[in-house]
Amino acid sequence: MRTIGIDLGGTKTLAVLVEDGVVVEKAKRPTPRVGSPDDVLTTMAKVAASVDPDATATAIGIGAPGPVVPGTGVLPAAPNLPGWDHDVPVADLMSERLGGRPVVVGNDVNVGTLAEHRLGAGKGVDDLLGVFAGTGVGAGLILDGQLREGPRGLAGEIGHIFVAFRDLAQQVEGLGRGELEDYAGRKALERRVIAAGAPDNEAMLALRSDGRLKSKAWATAIEMNDPLARRLVDQAASALATAMASVITILDIELVVLGGGFAERLGEPFRLRVEAEVAERAFAGISAPVVPARLGDAGGAIGAALLVEGLA
Amino acid sequence: MRTIGIDLGGTKTLAVLVEDGVVVEKAKRPTPRVGSPDDVLTTMAKVAASVDPDATATAIGIGAPGPVVPGTGVLPAAPNLPGWDHDVPVADLMSERLGGRPVVVGNDVNVGTLAEHRLGAGKGVDDLLGVFAGTGVGAGLILDGQLREGPRGLAGEIGHIFVAFRDLAQQVEGLGRGELEDYAGRKALERRVIAAGAPDNEAMLALRSDGRLKSKAWATAIEMNDPLARRLVDQAASALATAMASVITILDIELVVLGGGFAERLGEPFRLRVEAEVAERAFAGISAPVVPARLGDAGGAIGAALLVEGLA
Repeated sequence: MRTIGIDLGGTKTLAVLVEDGVVVEKAKRPTPRVGSPDDVLTTMAKVAASVDPDATATAIGIGAPGPVVPGTGVLPAAPNLPGWDHDVPVADLMSERLGGRPVVVGNDVNVGTLAEHRLGAGKGVDDLLGVFAGTGVGAGLILDGQLREGPRGLAGEIGHIFVAFRDLAQQVEGLGRGELEDYAGRKALERRVIAAGAPDNEAMLALRSDGRLKSKAWATAIEMNDPLARRLVDQAASALATAMASVITILDIELVVLGGGFAERLGEPFRLRVEAEVAERAFAGISAPVVPARLGDAGGAIGAALLVEGLA
Repeated sequence: MRTIGIDLGGTKTLAVLVEDGVVVEKAKRPTPRVGSPDDVLTTMAKVAASVDPDATATAIGIGAPGPVVPGTGVLPAAPNLPGWDHDVPVADLMSERLGGRPVVVGNDVNVGTLAEHRLGAGKGVDDLLGVFAGTGVGAGLILDGQLREGPRGLAGEIGHIFVAFRDLAQQVEGLGRGELEDYAGRKALERRVIAAGAPDNEAMLALRSDGRLKSKAWATAIEMNDPLARRLVDQAASALATAMASVITILDIELVVLGGGFAERLGEPFRLRVEAEVAERAFAGISAPVVPARLGDAGGAIGAALLVEGLA
C-alpha cells in the first residue's frame, strides 16, 4: 500500500512516498514564482514522479497553501502561488496528469496538524490545536479525533483571531488591527522592525539576507540580546499565547502542538515562554501543554498522504 | 412520548414538559439561595412534579449552571448554587428521586444553544455559535450538527476569550485582564460603573434596584442617552463582536445566535451594532450573521429536554 503526499508551498514543493505508514522516498523542487497555475501543477506532477517514477502509488494527497472548498479539491485563491486568482480544480487536473489516480486536496496547515495528530507530537490526543508560526501564522484543529475543516473549508485561521482591541492596538502599536498575525508572523515582525525607525532597528536590519529578515536572523538577534528583537519576540510569544488560550477556552483543547519555521528556529526558550503564558492565562486553571511539533519540514507532505490513506 | 427539561439557574429553576416536540406544561420555582446541594435537588424534583404530577415523562434532562463532567452527570462546581463546592452526581441523585427514570445533565448554555439549533433561530444551520450575555457571558457550539462539549465538558467558555492584551487593557481600562467578560457581562459593567467614580456614574447608580444594576437599568440609561452607559454598552458590543469574530474565524462558523437577558433587553440596536462590527472584523470578508435567539426564557429547559429525546 503506497501513497504520495505533496506539500505545495509558496517557496518549495515537497513530496513523500509513504509505504505502510513509513516515508520511503522524499523529493523537492522550487515552486514556480512566475507563470500560471498550470506551471504549478506541472511542478507537482514532476515531484510526484521523482518519488515514484513507476507510478506505484494508488492515490495522491496534496496540502495546498489556501482554503480548499470542502469535498471538491478546488483551490480558489492562493496569494503565494503565481496567477492563482481564480478557482482551480486541483484534484481533477492533477488526477488527469497522474493517470486517473484519485487525488485529494486539503489545506496545508490542516494536513500538517493531521500528521502531528496521527504520527507526531499529538499522537493519542483527540482534541488538539496545531499552530504553525512561519511567515504568517496558521492553525489546524483536531476535535474528537477528527480534522475540523468547517463548512467553507476555513477553519483554523488563528492568525486572524483578535488579541487586542483594534483601537488600543493602533494607539499603542501603530500597525494592524489587533489580530494575532499583526504581532506574530515573520512578515508582521519585519514590518514592525522597519516601523521602529533608526537607530533602534539598525542592528536588526543589518541581519537581513536577500532583503528579508529570515527566521535565522531573529534567532541571531535574540542571541545577541538585541532590545528591539527581544521586545518584538516577547510580544509575538504573548500574542500567540493569548490566541492559544482563547482557543483552548472556547473549545476545551487538551494539547497545543507548536511548529513552523519561525517558532522552530527560536526553539525551546520561545516555546517555554509561550507555554508559561498559556498556563497563566488559562481559564479556571485548566490549560493545555504546548509541545514542539515533531515531524519538521516533511509534516505537511506526510499529512497530505494521510488524506488518501483510506483510498490506497 | 413525553420528556421533562429543567433549567437550573442561580435565581430560578424552570421546568417544561415536552410532548412530541411541543411544550405542554411549564413551571418555575426560586432556586434556594442558602442551604446545600440537597435543597437544590429537592427544588428540581418539586418543579418536575409540578409540570408532570403523574410521572408520565419517560426521561428528564437538566441544564446546569457549570461545566458537567462528560458522560457522568456530575456537576463539580457551581458558584451560583448554595454549598456547591464539591462533585455532586446530579444525574444519579435525581434519578433516585424521580422513580429511577433516566436523567441526563448538560451545561445550561450548551443546552440553550442546542434548543436554538433544533427549534429556534439556528434551525437548519449545522455550524453555529450561541452567545448568551446576561450576568456573565457564555456560549455553546454546534459543529457539523453536533453539540461540542469537549473532553472535559468545558467547551464554550467564550467569556474567558481574550479581546485585549492584558497589559494594554489594564493600562487603559484599569479592570480585568482583557477577557470578554471584563467588558460584556452585566456584573463587569456594574464594576466599571462604580470604578468610573462621581459624578460620571451618578445617573447610572440612581437606576439601581435591590442594590444592583439590572439589565432593565441599562436599557433605561441608553434610552436616556447617558454618556457613561453609552460608552460601556458600546464597549460591550465591541468586545462581544471581537470574540465572535475570533470564534467565527477559528472554526468557520456560519451563524451566531445572540441571547441572554442583557442582550435581549438592549434589543435590536444592540444586536445590529454587534453584527455590524462582526462583519467589519471578519477575516477575508467571510462572516456570519448575528440573529436574535428565539426561544427566550424557556430555551434552556427546552434544550435540557432535547438531551433525553433519544431516551423517551
